[in-house]
Amino acid sequence: MTSTAMAAVVSQSEIYAQVQQFYAGQVRHLDGMRAEEFAGSFTADGVFDHRPGGDPLVGREAIAAAIGEYQRTTHAADPVQRRHWFNMLQVFAQDDGTLRTEYYALVVQTRPGVREPVVGPSCFVTDILVHEDGELRTKFRKVSPDHLV
Amino acid sequence: MTSTAMAAVVSQSEIYAQVQQFYAGQVRHLDGMRAEEFAGSFTADGVFDHRPGGDPLVGREAIAAAIGEYQRTTHAADPVQRRHWFNMLQVFAQDDGTLRTEYYALVVQTRPGVREPVVGPSCFVTDILVHEDGELRTKFRKVSPDHLV
Amino acid sequence: MTSTAMAAVVSQSEIYAQVQQFYAGQVRHLDGMRAEEFAGSFTADGVFDHRPGGDPLVGREAIAAAIGEYQRTTHAADPVQRRHWFNMLQVFAQDDGTLRTEYYALVVQTRPGVREPVVGPSCFVTDILVHEDGELRTKFRKVSPDHLV
Repeated sequence: MTSTAMAAVVSQSEIYAQVQQFYAGQVRHLDGMRAEEFAGSFTADGVFDHRPGGDPLVGREAIAAAIGEYQRTTHAADPVQRRHWFNMLQVFAQDDGTLRTEYYALVVQTRPGVREPVVGPSCFVTDILVHEDGELRTKFRKVSPDHLV
Repeated sequence: MTSTAMAAVVSQSEIYAQVQQFYAGQVRHLDGMRAEEFAGSFTADGVFDHRPGGDPLVGREAIAAAIGEYQRTTHAADPVQRRHWFNMLQVFAQDDGTLRTEYYALVVQTRPGVREPVVGPSCFVTDILVHEDGELRTKFRKVSPDHLV
Repeated sequence: MTSTAMAAVVSQSEIYAQVQQFYAGQVRHLDGMRAEEFAGSFTADGVFDHRPGGDPLVGREAIAAAIGEYQRTTHAADPVQRRHWFNMLQVFAQDDGTLRTEYYALVVQTRPGVREPVVGPSCFVTDILVHEDGELRTKFRKVSPDHLV
Protein backbone atom coordinates (compact mmCIF):
# COMPACT_ATOMS: atom_id res chain seq x y z
CA MET A 1 0.00 0.00 0.00
CA THR A 2 1.41 3.42 -0.89
CA SER A 3 1.60 6.14 1.72
CA THR A 4 -1.10 8.09 -0.10
CA ALA A 5 -3.48 5.13 -0.34
CA MET A 6 -2.88 4.31 3.29
CA ALA A 7 -3.61 7.90 4.31
CA ALA A 8 -6.96 7.70 2.50
CA VAL A 9 -8.16 4.60 4.35
CA VAL A 10 -6.74 5.88 7.61
CA SER A 11 -8.73 9.01 7.03
CA GLN A 12 -12.03 7.17 6.51
CA SER A 13 -11.81 4.89 9.53
CA GLU A 14 -10.27 7.61 11.69
CA ILE A 15 -13.14 9.98 10.91
CA TYR A 16 -15.69 7.26 11.63
CA ALA A 17 -14.16 6.57 15.08
CA GLN A 18 -13.88 10.30 15.74
CA VAL A 19 -17.55 10.93 14.88
CA GLN A 20 -18.70 8.02 17.03
CA GLN A 21 -16.82 9.33 20.05
CA PHE A 22 -17.92 12.90 19.39
CA TYR A 23 -21.53 11.72 19.56
CA ALA A 24 -20.85 9.73 22.73
CA GLY A 25 -19.46 12.84 24.43
CA GLN A 26 -22.26 15.02 23.08
CA VAL A 27 -25.06 12.80 24.41
CA ARG A 28 -23.27 12.51 27.74
CA HIS A 29 -23.71 16.30 28.06
CA LEU A 30 -27.32 16.10 26.87
CA ASP A 31 -28.26 13.26 29.19
CA GLY A 32 -26.48 14.97 32.09
CA MET A 33 -28.40 18.16 31.29
CA ARG A 34 -25.17 20.13 31.05
CA ALA A 35 -26.76 22.84 28.93
CA GLU A 36 -23.67 24.95 28.20
CA GLU A 37 -21.47 21.99 27.38
CA PHE A 38 -24.10 20.46 25.11
CA ALA A 39 -24.64 23.79 23.34
CA GLY A 40 -20.86 24.09 23.02
CA SER A 41 -20.80 20.92 20.93
CA PHE A 42 -22.66 22.90 18.26
CA THR A 43 -21.05 25.69 16.24
CA ALA A 44 -21.81 29.24 17.44
CA ASP A 45 -24.39 29.50 14.63
CA GLY A 46 -25.51 25.90 14.99
CA VAL A 47 -29.07 24.94 14.07
CA PHE A 48 -30.92 22.23 16.02
CA ASP A 49 -34.14 21.35 14.21
CA HIS A 50 -35.28 19.11 17.01
CA ARG A 51 -38.96 18.58 16.22
CA PRO A 52 -41.17 18.81 13.16
CA GLY A 53 -43.51 21.79 13.17
CA GLY A 54 -41.55 23.66 15.82
CA ASP A 55 -39.08 26.47 15.20
CA PRO A 56 -35.51 25.22 15.01
CA LEU A 57 -33.18 26.26 17.81
CA VAL A 58 -30.60 28.63 16.32
CA GLY A 59 -27.32 29.31 18.07
CA ARG A 60 -25.81 28.09 21.32
CA GLU A 61 -27.85 30.35 23.55
CA ALA A 62 -31.14 28.99 22.20
CA ILE A 63 -29.90 25.41 22.41
CA ALA A 64 -28.71 25.82 26.02
CA ALA A 65 -31.98 27.56 26.93
CA ALA A 66 -34.01 24.62 25.60
CA ILE A 67 -32.04 22.19 27.78
CA GLY A 68 -32.56 24.45 30.79
CA GLU A 69 -36.27 24.69 30.03
CA TYR A 70 -36.54 20.89 29.82
CA GLN A 71 -34.72 20.59 33.14
CA ARG A 72 -36.94 23.14 34.93
CA THR A 73 -40.25 21.82 33.59
CA THR A 74 -40.50 18.29 32.18
CA HIS A 75 -37.61 16.87 34.16
CA ALA A 76 -38.52 18.66 37.40
CA ALA A 77 -42.01 17.13 37.23
CA ASP A 78 -40.77 13.65 36.26
CA PRO A 79 -37.05 13.23 36.93
CA VAL A 80 -36.20 10.48 34.47
CA GLN A 81 -32.64 9.64 33.49
CA ARG A 82 -32.58 10.00 29.75
CA ARG A 83 -30.09 8.09 27.60
CA HIS A 84 -29.81 8.93 23.92
CA TRP A 85 -28.72 6.00 21.81
CA PHE A 86 -27.44 6.62 18.27
CA ASN A 87 -26.82 3.76 15.85
CA MET A 88 -26.50 2.67 12.22
CA LEU A 89 -24.30 5.67 11.49
CA GLN A 90 -23.16 6.69 8.04
CA VAL A 91 -20.57 9.43 7.56
CA PHE A 92 -20.38 11.12 4.16
CA ALA A 93 -17.40 13.43 3.58
CA GLN A 94 -18.55 16.48 1.60
CA ASP A 95 -16.53 18.37 -1.00
CA ASP A 96 -16.50 21.47 1.21
CA GLY A 97 -14.73 19.60 3.99
CA THR A 98 -17.82 19.15 6.15
CA LEU A 99 -19.28 15.79 7.10
CA ARG A 100 -22.88 14.81 6.53
CA THR A 101 -24.09 12.04 8.81
CA GLU A 102 -27.24 9.95 8.96
CA TYR A 103 -28.20 7.76 11.89
CA TYR A 104 -30.99 6.28 13.99
CA ALA A 105 -31.66 7.61 17.49
CA LEU A 106 -33.64 6.12 20.33
CA VAL A 107 -34.38 7.71 23.68
CA VAL A 108 -34.26 5.42 26.73
CA GLN A 109 -35.82 6.93 29.87
CA THR A 110 -35.52 5.38 33.32
CA ARG A 111 -37.61 6.43 36.31
CA PRO A 112 -36.01 6.15 39.76
CA GLY A 113 -36.64 2.70 41.18
CA VAL A 114 -38.14 1.33 37.97
CA ARG A 115 -35.91 -1.29 36.37
CA GLU A 116 -37.52 -1.24 32.91
CA PRO A 117 -37.03 2.02 31.02
CA VAL A 118 -39.51 3.64 28.66
CA VAL A 119 -38.10 3.29 25.16
CA GLY A 120 -38.87 5.94 22.54
CA PRO A 121 -39.25 7.90 20.47
CA SER A 122 -37.35 6.31 17.61
CA CYS A 123 -35.95 8.93 15.24
CA PHE A 124 -34.01 9.38 12.03
CA VAL A 125 -31.40 12.10 12.31
CA THR A 126 -29.18 13.90 9.84
CA ASP A 127 -26.33 16.22 10.81
CA ILE A 128 -23.75 18.47 9.22
CA LEU A 129 -20.53 18.33 11.24
CA VAL A 130 -17.52 20.62 10.89
CA HIS A 131 -14.04 20.70 12.37
CA GLU A 132 -13.30 23.74 14.55
CA ASP A 133 -10.03 24.07 16.47
CA GLY A 134 -9.35 20.39 15.87
CA GLU A 135 -12.70 19.32 17.34
CA LEU A 136 -15.91 18.22 15.71
CA ARG A 137 -18.99 20.36 16.14
CA THR A 138 -22.58 20.07 14.93
CA LYS A 139 -23.47 22.85 12.50
CA PHE A 140 -26.92 21.51 11.66
CA ARG A 141 -29.14 18.76 13.02
CA LYS A 142 -32.55 17.67 11.88
CA VAL A 143 -34.44 15.12 13.98
CA SER A 144 -37.37 13.27 12.40
CA PRO A 145 -39.29 11.23 14.99
CA ASP A 146 -40.80 8.13 13.39
CA HIS A 147 -44.22 8.62 15.01
CA LEU A 148 -44.66 12.12 13.59
CA VAL A 149 -44.10 11.33 9.92
CA MET B 1 5.81 1.15 13.46
CA THR B 2 6.90 -0.33 10.13
CA SER B 3 4.86 0.32 7.03
CA THR B 4 3.79 -3.34 6.97
CA ALA B 5 2.70 -3.39 10.61
CA MET B 6 0.84 -0.13 10.13
CA ALA B 7 -0.94 -1.50 7.08
CA ALA B 8 -2.13 -4.48 9.16
CA VAL B 9 -3.73 -2.38 11.89
CA VAL B 10 -5.07 0.08 9.33
CA SER B 11 -6.63 -2.87 7.63
CA GLN B 12 -8.38 -4.12 10.77
CA SER B 13 -9.87 -0.81 11.88
CA GLU B 14 -10.62 0.25 8.31
CA ILE B 15 -12.55 -2.97 7.64
CA TYR B 16 -14.48 -2.56 10.91
CA ALA B 17 -15.55 0.99 9.99
CA GLN B 18 -16.39 -0.13 6.45
CA VAL B 19 -18.56 -3.02 7.66
CA GLN B 20 -20.39 -0.78 10.14
CA GLN B 21 -21.25 1.73 7.43
CA PHE B 22 -22.17 -1.00 4.96
CA TYR B 23 -24.72 -2.29 7.47
CA ALA B 24 -26.04 1.23 8.10
CA GLY B 25 -26.64 1.70 4.38
CA GLN B 26 -28.12 -1.77 4.01
CA VAL B 27 -30.70 -1.32 6.78
CA ARG B 28 -31.58 2.11 5.40
CA HIS B 29 -32.70 0.31 2.20
CA LEU B 30 -34.49 -2.38 4.21
CA ASP B 31 -36.29 0.06 6.49
CA GLY B 32 -37.19 2.25 3.51
CA MET B 33 -38.58 -0.85 1.74
CA ARG B 34 -36.36 -0.20 -1.27
CA ALA B 35 -36.51 -3.81 -2.38
CA GLU B 36 -34.10 -3.64 -5.34
CA GLU B 37 -31.49 -1.62 -3.48
CA PHE B 38 -31.65 -3.92 -0.46
CA ALA B 39 -31.38 -7.01 -2.67
CA GLY B 40 -28.45 -5.32 -4.45
CA SER B 41 -26.53 -5.25 -1.18
CA PHE B 42 -26.40 -9.05 -1.44
CA THR B 43 -24.32 -10.90 -4.02
CA ALA B 44 -26.21 -12.14 -7.09
CA ASP B 45 -26.26 -15.62 -5.52
CA GLY B 46 -26.75 -14.27 -1.99
CA VAL B 47 -28.59 -16.40 0.57
CA PHE B 48 -30.79 -14.77 3.21
CA ASP B 49 -31.79 -17.37 5.79
CA HIS B 50 -34.16 -14.99 7.52
CA ARG B 51 -36.19 -17.27 9.72
CA PRO B 52 -35.79 -20.72 11.26
CA GLY B 53 -37.95 -23.39 9.65
CA GLY B 54 -38.59 -21.35 6.51
CA ASP B 55 -36.83 -21.77 3.19
CA PRO B 56 -33.91 -19.37 2.82
CA LEU B 57 -34.26 -16.65 0.20
CA VAL B 58 -31.76 -17.40 -2.57
CA GLY B 59 -30.66 -14.70 -4.99
CA ARG B 60 -31.55 -11.05 -5.39
CA GLU B 61 -34.89 -11.66 -7.08
CA ALA B 62 -36.17 -13.75 -4.17
CA ILE B 63 -34.83 -11.25 -1.62
CA ALA B 64 -36.45 -8.30 -3.41
CA ALA B 65 -39.70 -10.24 -3.77
CA ALA B 66 -39.83 -10.89 -0.02
CA ILE B 67 -39.48 -7.17 0.70
CA GLY B 68 -42.22 -6.40 -1.81
CA GLU B 69 -44.45 -9.06 -0.26
CA TYR B 70 -43.91 -7.56 3.21
CA GLN B 71 -44.77 -4.12 1.85
CA ARG B 72 -47.98 -5.26 0.12
CA THR B 73 -49.29 -7.38 3.00
CA THR B 74 -47.97 -6.84 6.55
CA HIS B 75 -46.96 -3.22 6.04
CA ALA B 76 -50.08 -2.30 4.05
CA ALA B 77 -52.27 -3.58 6.90
CA ASP B 78 -50.17 -1.96 9.64
CA PRO B 79 -47.86 0.72 8.24
CA VAL B 80 -45.16 0.75 10.92
CA GLN B 81 -41.79 2.39 10.39
CA ARG B 82 -39.29 -0.36 11.01
CA ARG B 83 -35.75 0.39 12.16
CA HIS B 84 -33.22 -2.42 12.27
CA TRP B 85 -30.54 -1.92 14.91
CA PHE B 86 -27.34 -3.99 14.73
CA ASN B 87 -24.83 -4.00 17.57
CA MET B 88 -21.99 -5.85 19.31
CA LEU B 89 -20.38 -6.57 15.96
CA GLN B 90 -17.40 -8.84 15.47
CA VAL B 91 -15.63 -9.07 12.12
CA PHE B 92 -13.48 -12.12 11.43
CA ALA B 93 -11.29 -12.00 8.32
CA GLN B 94 -11.26 -15.43 6.67
CA ASP B 95 -8.35 -17.05 4.84
CA ASP B 96 -10.30 -16.97 1.57
CA GLY B 97 -10.58 -13.17 1.73
CA THR B 98 -14.20 -13.12 2.87
CA LEU B 99 -15.38 -11.67 6.17
CA ARG B 100 -17.47 -13.56 8.68
CA THR B 101 -19.43 -11.32 11.02
CA GLU B 102 -21.50 -11.94 14.13
CA TYR B 103 -23.81 -9.40 15.70
CA TYR B 104 -27.02 -8.75 17.62
CA ALA B 105 -30.05 -7.28 15.85
CA LEU B 106 -33.16 -5.67 17.26
CA VAL B 107 -36.18 -4.49 15.32
CA VAL B 108 -37.79 -1.23 16.48
CA GLN B 109 -41.26 -0.59 15.02
CA THR B 110 -43.11 2.71 15.35
CA ARG B 111 -46.81 3.16 14.56
CA PRO B 112 -47.90 6.57 13.24
CA GLY B 113 -48.78 8.84 16.14
CA VAL B 114 -47.49 6.43 18.80
CA ARG B 115 -44.40 7.75 20.54
CA GLU B 116 -43.25 4.45 22.05
CA PRO B 117 -42.14 1.86 19.51
CA VAL B 118 -42.61 -1.88 19.75
CA VAL B 119 -39.19 -3.39 20.36
CA GLY B 120 -38.39 -6.86 19.06
CA PRO B 121 -37.60 -9.45 18.06
CA SER B 122 -34.05 -9.67 19.35
CA CYS B 123 -31.86 -11.79 17.09
CA PHE B 124 -28.38 -13.20 16.70
CA VAL B 125 -27.10 -12.86 13.16
CA THR B 126 -24.11 -14.23 11.29
CA ASP B 127 -23.05 -13.11 7.82
CA ILE B 128 -20.46 -13.88 5.19
CA LEU B 129 -19.45 -10.65 3.44
CA VAL B 130 -17.40 -10.35 0.27
CA HIS B 131 -15.88 -7.47 -1.66
CA GLU B 132 -17.26 -6.97 -5.18
CA ASP B 133 -16.23 -4.02 -7.33
CA GLY B 134 -14.74 -2.35 -4.27
CA GLU B 135 -17.99 -2.63 -2.30
CA LEU B 136 -19.06 -4.99 0.44
CA ARG B 137 -21.94 -7.36 -0.25
CA THR B 138 -23.67 -10.01 1.84
CA LYS B 139 -23.14 -13.49 0.42
CA PHE B 140 -24.86 -15.32 3.25
CA ARG B 141 -26.96 -14.27 6.23
CA LYS B 142 -28.51 -16.41 8.93
CA VAL B 143 -30.90 -14.76 11.40
CA SER B 144 -31.68 -16.59 14.66
CA PRO B 145 -34.48 -14.86 16.59
CA ASP B 146 -34.03 -15.33 20.33
CA HIS B 147 -37.66 -16.28 20.92
CA LEU B 148 -37.57 -19.16 18.44
CA VAL B 149 -34.57 -21.03 19.83
CA MET C 1 0.94 13.05 6.47
CA THR C 2 4.16 12.01 8.18
CA SER C 3 4.64 8.46 9.35
CA THR C 4 4.48 9.62 12.98
CA ALA C 5 1.29 11.62 12.52
CA MET C 6 -0.27 8.73 10.64
CA ALA C 7 0.66 6.30 13.40
CA ALA C 8 -1.12 8.54 15.94
CA VAL C 9 -4.43 8.58 14.10
CA VAL C 10 -4.09 4.91 13.22
CA SER C 11 -3.63 4.27 16.88
CA GLN C 12 -6.79 6.12 17.92
CA SER C 13 -9.13 4.54 15.39
CA GLU C 14 -7.48 1.15 15.70
CA ILE C 15 -7.92 1.15 19.48
CA TYR C 16 -11.57 2.20 19.11
CA ALA C 17 -12.29 -0.69 16.72
CA GLN C 18 -10.36 -3.08 18.94
CA VAL C 19 -12.30 -2.05 22.07
CA GLN C 20 -15.63 -2.36 20.25
CA GLN C 21 -14.83 -5.90 19.14
CA PHE C 22 -13.42 -6.84 22.52
CA TYR C 23 -16.75 -5.87 24.08
CA ALA C 24 -18.68 -7.79 21.42
CA GLY C 25 -16.69 -10.93 22.22
CA GLN C 26 -16.98 -10.37 25.96
CA VAL C 27 -20.78 -10.04 25.94
CA ARG C 28 -21.04 -13.09 23.70
CA HIS C 29 -19.43 -15.07 26.55
CA LEU C 30 -21.66 -13.38 29.14
CA ASP C 31 -24.88 -13.91 27.19
CA GLY C 32 -23.88 -17.51 26.42
CA MET C 33 -23.22 -18.03 30.16
CA ARG C 34 -19.69 -19.24 29.42
CA ALA C 35 -18.48 -18.40 32.91
CA GLU C 36 -14.79 -19.26 32.51
CA GLU C 37 -14.45 -17.49 29.18
CA PHE C 38 -16.22 -14.39 30.46
CA ALA C 39 -14.06 -14.34 33.59
CA GLY C 40 -11.01 -14.78 31.36
CA SER C 41 -11.81 -11.49 29.64
CA PHE C 42 -10.95 -9.81 32.96
CA THR C 43 -7.41 -9.62 34.35
CA ALA C 44 -6.56 -12.21 37.01
CA ASP C 45 -7.09 -9.51 39.65
CA GLY C 46 -10.02 -7.94 37.80
CA VAL C 47 -12.74 -6.15 39.76
CA PHE C 48 -16.36 -6.27 38.60
CA ASP C 49 -18.41 -3.78 40.62
CA HIS C 50 -21.65 -4.98 39.11
CA ARG C 51 -24.27 -3.48 41.40
CA PRO C 52 -24.46 -0.58 43.81
CA GLY C 53 -24.54 -1.63 47.45
CA GLY C 54 -23.22 -5.12 46.77
CA ASP C 55 -19.65 -6.28 47.24
CA PRO C 56 -17.64 -6.08 44.02
CA LEU C 57 -16.57 -9.37 42.46
CA VAL C 58 -12.78 -9.59 42.77
CA GLY C 59 -10.78 -11.96 40.60
CA ARG C 60 -11.73 -14.42 37.89
CA GLU C 61 -12.93 -17.12 40.26
CA ALA C 62 -15.48 -14.79 41.87
CA ILE C 63 -16.61 -13.48 38.48
CA ALA C 64 -17.04 -16.99 37.06
CA ALA C 65 -18.86 -18.09 40.22
CA ALA C 66 -21.37 -15.23 39.87
CA ILE C 67 -22.18 -16.29 36.31
CA GLY C 68 -22.60 -19.89 37.45
CA GLU C 69 -24.85 -18.76 40.31
CA TYR C 70 -27.00 -16.74 37.89
CA GLN C 71 -27.26 -19.77 35.61
CA ARG C 72 -28.26 -22.17 38.41
CA THR C 73 -30.81 -19.88 40.06
CA THR C 74 -32.30 -16.95 38.13
CA HIS C 75 -31.81 -18.46 34.69
CA ALA C 76 -32.88 -21.96 35.71
CA ALA C 77 -36.16 -20.55 37.03
CA ASP C 78 -36.73 -18.28 34.03
CA PRO C 79 -34.54 -19.26 31.07
CA VAL C 80 -34.38 -15.97 29.22
CA GLN C 81 -31.84 -15.28 26.49
CA ARG C 82 -30.00 -12.19 27.67
CA ARG C 83 -28.32 -9.82 25.22
CA HIS C 84 -26.11 -7.06 26.56
CA TRP C 85 -26.02 -4.00 24.33
CA PHE C 86 -23.25 -1.43 24.81
CA ASN C 87 -23.33 1.93 23.02
CA MET C 88 -22.15 5.55 23.00
CA LEU C 89 -18.62 4.42 23.79
CA GLN C 90 -15.78 6.76 24.64
CA VAL C 91 -12.20 5.48 24.93
CA PHE C 92 -9.71 7.62 26.87
CA ALA C 93 -6.05 6.57 26.64
CA GLN C 94 -4.39 7.06 30.03
CA ASP C 95 -0.79 8.09 30.66
CA ASP C 96 -0.04 4.71 32.23
CA GLY C 97 -0.95 2.90 29.01
CA THR C 98 -4.35 1.71 30.23
CA LEU C 99 -7.63 2.70 28.62
CA ARG C 100 -10.55 4.21 30.49
CA THR C 101 -13.89 3.72 28.79
CA GLU C 102 -17.36 5.06 29.39
CA TYR C 103 -20.50 3.70 27.76
CA TYR C 104 -24.20 3.00 28.07
CA ALA C 105 -25.45 -0.57 28.53
CA LEU C 106 -28.90 -2.02 28.08
CA VAL C 107 -29.99 -5.57 28.84
CA VAL C 108 -32.43 -7.15 26.38
CA GLN C 109 -34.08 -10.35 27.67
CA THR C 110 -36.15 -12.66 25.50
CA ARG C 111 -38.37 -15.43 26.87
CA PRO C 112 -38.82 -18.55 24.72
CA GLY C 113 -41.76 -18.06 22.37
CA VAL C 114 -42.23 -14.39 23.24
CA ARG C 115 -41.36 -12.12 20.34
CA GLU C 116 -41.02 -8.90 22.34
CA PRO C 117 -38.11 -8.86 24.77
CA VAL C 118 -38.03 -7.18 28.16
CA VAL C 119 -35.72 -4.20 27.86
CA GLY C 120 -33.72 -3.04 30.88
CA PRO C 121 -32.07 -2.12 33.05
CA SER C 122 -30.34 0.83 31.40
CA CYS C 123 -26.90 1.44 32.90
CA PHE C 124 -23.89 3.71 32.74
CA VAL C 125 -20.63 1.79 32.82
CA THR C 126 -17.00 2.74 33.22
CA ASP C 127 -14.08 0.36 32.69
CA ILE C 128 -10.32 0.29 32.94
CA LEU C 129 -8.91 -1.90 30.15
CA VAL C 130 -5.35 -3.14 29.83
CA HIS C 131 -3.41 -5.02 27.18
CA GLU C 132 -2.13 -8.45 28.22
CA ASP C 133 -0.41 -10.79 25.79
CA GLY C 134 -1.65 -8.63 22.91
CA GLU C 135 -5.28 -8.89 24.04
CA LEU C 136 -7.52 -6.45 25.83
CA ARG C 137 -8.77 -7.36 29.29
CA THR C 138 -11.01 -5.60 31.80
CA LYS C 139 -9.13 -4.67 34.96
CA PHE C 140 -12.00 -2.77 36.54
CA ARG C 141 -15.69 -2.31 35.76
CA LYS C 142 -18.27 -0.27 37.58
CA VAL C 143 -21.92 -0.61 36.53
CA SER C 144 -24.39 2.10 37.61
CA PRO C 145 -27.98 1.11 36.80
CA ASP C 146 -30.08 4.18 36.05
CA HIS C 147 -32.96 3.08 38.26
CA LEU C 148 -30.79 2.75 41.37
CA VAL C 149 -29.28 6.24 41.37
